[in-house]
Amino acid sequence: MQVSGGDLQWLRQQNILNSLRALREACAPLTLTELVTQTGLSRASVGDVVAELQQRGWIAEVEPAPGTLGRPAKRYRFRTDAGHVLGIDVGVHKVLAVVTDLAGRTVSSGRVAVDRHTARHERLEAAWRAIDAALVASGLAASDLWGATAGSTGVVNREGLVTRVDDLPDWPGVDLAGHLGQRLPCPITIENDSKLAALAEQRLGVAAGVRDLVYLHVGRRPGAAIILNGQLHHGFSGATGEVGLMEITGWRTMAGRLESCPAAAGASPQEAARFVFDAARAGDPEARAAVDVYARHLALGTAAMVLTLDPELVVLGGGFSRSADVLLPALNRALEPHCLRLPDIRPSTLGEECVALGGACLALDHVDEWLFSLEGTSSSPAAPRRLP
Amino acid sequence: MQVSGGDLQWLRQQNILNSLRALREACAPLTLTELVTQTGLSRASVGDVVAELQQRGWIAEVEPAPGTLGRPAKRYRFRTDAGHVLGIDVGVHKVLAVVTDLAGRTVSSGRVAVDRHTARHERLEAAWRAIDAALVASGLAASDLWGATAGSTGVVNREGLVTRVDDLPDWPGVDLAGHLGQRLPCPITIENDSKLAALAEQRLGVAAGVRDLVYLHVGRRPGAAIILNGQLHHGFSGATGEVGLMEITGWRTMAGRLESCPAAAGASPQEAARFVFDAARAGDPEARAAVDVYARHLALGTAAMVLTLDPELVVLGGGFSRSADVLLPALNRALEPHCLRLPDIRPSTLGEECVALGGACLALDHVDEWLFSLEGTSSSPAAPRRLP
Repeated sequence: MQVSGGDLQWLRQQNILNSLRALREACAPLTLTELVTQTGLSRASVGDVVAELQQRGWIAEVEPAPGTLGRPAKRYRFRTDAGHVLGIDVGVHKVLAVVTDLAGRTVSSGRVAVDRHTARHERLEAAWRAIDAALVASGLAASDLWGATAGSTGVVNREGLVTRVDDLPDWPGVDLAGHLGQRLPCPITIENDSKLAALAEQRLGVAAGVRDLVYLHVGRRPGAAIILNGQLHHGFSGATGEVGLMEITGWRTMAGRLESCPAAAGASPQEAARFVFDAARAGDPEARAAVDVYARHLALGTAAMVLTLDPELVVLGGGFSRSADVLLPALNRALEPHCLRLPDIRPSTLGEECVALGGACLALDHVDEWLFSLEGTSSSPAAPRRLP
Repeated sequence: MQVSGGDLQWLRQQNILNSLRALREACAPLTLTELVTQTGLSRASVGDVVAELQQRGWIAEVEPAPGTLGRPAKRYRFRTDAGHVLGIDVGVHKVLAVVTDLAGRTVSSGRVAVDRHTARHERLEAAWRAIDAALVASGLAASDLWGATAGSTGVVNREGLVTRVDDLPDWPGVDLAGHLGQRLPCPITIENDSKLAALAEQRLGVAAGVRDLVYLHVGRRPGAAIILNGQLHHGFSGATGEVGLMEITGWRTMAGRLESCPAAAGASPQEAARFVFDAARAGDPEARAAVDVYARHLALGTAAMVLTLDPELVVLGGGFSRSADVLLPALNRALEPHCLRLPDIRPSTLGEECVALGGACLALDHVDEWLFSLEGTSSSPAAPRRLP
């Protein structure tokens, strides 16, 4: 076969990207021999590629474990510290910004309290204070970030605009990406908060490795998100997981009904549900009945999604999931009669940070797209924009 | 860079598969120049690869259009006639087998009438008669088939076993793949009939090119199927699109209620619904009311799926879709109050053959998987098992 210079350049590019991907996805550092096995490349090509990736700062040699006898084989790891991303949760009650490394590990965070009466410009200002705090704590500058994703309550369309919000009257139409772009030079995406929470649980939390799942945000504003084949499902207009809009599910009123239980008397709106769950846990019959009614409504919308998608797992997130010990058994009982197969239901493990962490995960997906987007072209991966 | 023999073999393999894929996916024959553009390969490599693919029988040169002046550039096409697959619809009232080429075009078909009282062994025997008829009409032997997929009513699990059927008592547990494998030497898959109908509409019918859609089987046994990112969504246990199992939707009783309308008096069970749709079309108020009630129930289950997935399109298939002129406006009216965004709803265009054609489409997916599965390995594509 005739081999042109272009063919060889393309072949070399494939080798570089295949090796980088193998190291990026490996759970542990790899030896040259392991890279040969995983990439199907020749020993000579792997040695050549590893030298280049090391020189470019994408990978590092790992010191042998102390006490290792003889001369151990050299091992190499992807440098998760080669870059950083930003995840931001622009919520109703808080704005939280987290800086993570390329493995999604939190390096620093900043948090500012807001409330439902905070005006749009104040909420956006709070976002800057949270971001600045996270950057200061990380020792990074905005220009060091490789990507950023902000999560917002409400429906976010494919263009990243918030199109519908139930309880922040001045929030619909906000151009978060445009606002953050004024001071963040990196790629910026905007996503619905429940979608980001679902992604975080699938990448870093209780759903790690699960391909198909339904995420339930159980709180004062119930919501849902769907992950299929390991990716967020956006649908045609970005409005997925909105089954709660069907009056028949009762999702829009179920939290209020729970909070009107006598067990919540005297509690603030934020505390009311917890009071009811606590009373139910303690055996209060009225509270138990109120939790059962709530679970039956939650189960209607959940069953609709489960019967549609047959997911492996349902993740229970949001504020009420802190009372999963009480809520989860009630939800299982209420779901059972509807379902062909009752899916595994597990409470969120990431808690308050899940939306911001999901933002970091989505920003990391975009970093990887950029990192591996050159496949099939004749150029080679760009060097990290900054090396520590 | 050092280039080993293995590297070159791998490179050659990539070139062959990339060129074959480009020709397979092209809507029209391609010139060498177009192949160079689409594959990013050198002219020399493309010429080398085309010669080999032509010699192996995968592609053919296309005669220039009559009257073409000068010496036109040579054009090449994927040989859709290089192989054939079989799609089988093992239904309640019929067994239909179709033989298609590699483009999913029907070459021949065979059909045998059955009914709900046909015993399992008789239904399986009818399947053989339909398959034999389709093979005889095509001039092919069973050994010429590259793949076969059979569609069955009921829930089909990931292992291809029918696990749940409402109206064929002796059908659950049937091992269709094992049965067909006794005389079909090719790979065989079994799938739910609505899922295959959905796939056919997305590949060959009204939903051609649509990535995300919900398929509604509206008939005496309502069902649904989901296509996401252009692929059937199976879920964890194969039970997707089963929202009709929720009592609250009324799906299990809505057809019977429609058929109990006075307008259906004297009609056979098979004709009853059509009588009601005809009467509604003619302006009969009772029939119109019955259609509206049916549409409201259909809309409940449909809204649950639409709000969960936000699909681009909903396809109306099944026997009742022949009365789409009456049913579709009623369904749109009933859906509107539930949905954030009312998706486009279109009636099926493939009609009675859609399940069998969907079987052929799924078998073709497996052919392509096999055809392109060698990517990254050092071997080259196998020649067609038979050349005409």
